[in-house]
Amino acid sequence: MTDQYLDAAVAEAIAGRDEGGIPIGAVLVVDGTIVGRGHNQRVQLGSPTLHGETAALENAGRLPASVYRRSVMYTTLSPCDMCSGAILLYEIPKVVIGENRTFMGNEEYLRQRGVEVEVADDGRCVDLMNTFIADHPDLWNEDIGV
Amino acid sequence: MTDQYLDAAVAEAIAGRDEGGIPIGAVLVVDGTIVGRGHNQRVQLGSPTLHGETAALENAGRLPASVYRRSVMYTTLSPCDMCSGAILLYEIPKVVIGENRTFMGNEEYLRQRGVEVEVADDGRCVDLMNTFIADHPDLWNEDIGV
Repeated sequence: MTDQYLDAAVAEAIAGRDEGGIPIGAVLVVDGTIVGRGHNQRVQLGSPTLHGETAALENAGRLPASVYRRSVMYTTLSPCDMCSGAILLYEIPKVVIGENRTFMGNEEYLRQRGVEVEVADDGRCVDLMNTFIADHPDLWNEDIGV
Repeated sequence: MTDQYLDAAVAEAIAGRDEGGIPIGAVLVVDGTIVGRGHNQRVQLGSPTLHGETAALENAGRLPASVYRRSVMYTTLSPCDMCSGAILLYEIPKVVIGENRTFMGNEEYLRQRGVEVEVADDGRCVDLMNTFIADHPDLWNEDIGV
């Protein structure tokens, strides 16, 4: 059974790929409704801070702390340090990760700080990243600061 | 003796205040030159992710990993989890913090991860924040996810 929210994050990743960008997408869900969605904007906007998760937060706009605290972040790829930090800043209690095979963020630190971390190990997410990394290794390294 | 880079970060914080925004500014310095500068954009752009540090990174644009690794981030206020994460993502080796009296981020975690953290305890930075927090407590709490 696929998850409609992870599907929406994957759709964002595919949209990013189709724009020539890095195929990572995310959606922020509150009470069962997607309130923000986005994908990595390094190529499209030349942005070093709009990753999937931060782009979804930007798209959601300003929300009260109480709303973040009952939200779930769905992201196609294990969050980097910056996006993990954004999740911690807003005390988002749960993150659903498409895959962590092609990149493993500091999931243990998220758990230590009280975030529930679920890894879907979704083949679509793995395929998107494997294809992208094979085609654009330099762009990928730039995105993760390597 | 004041530090020209911290002065530039303070100038960004003052510019933010004068726009009706949250008075936190930052500059990214590489080889003695300011390559990016910015201030919190919650009020001005309705942004939940453009804090001082991330705004300075955005303003600097896409940089090679090797450039971040010899840079210094100057910020008027102790970095929040998100901005600390951005510093870790790009392996920025040093952060100079204007003050950490009005807000203390996870400076210990930055140090654990190998970042040199210097706190200037600058009175201008403290005054900017104290005045702002007294005038706009709700806006401040929103910015730090409280």
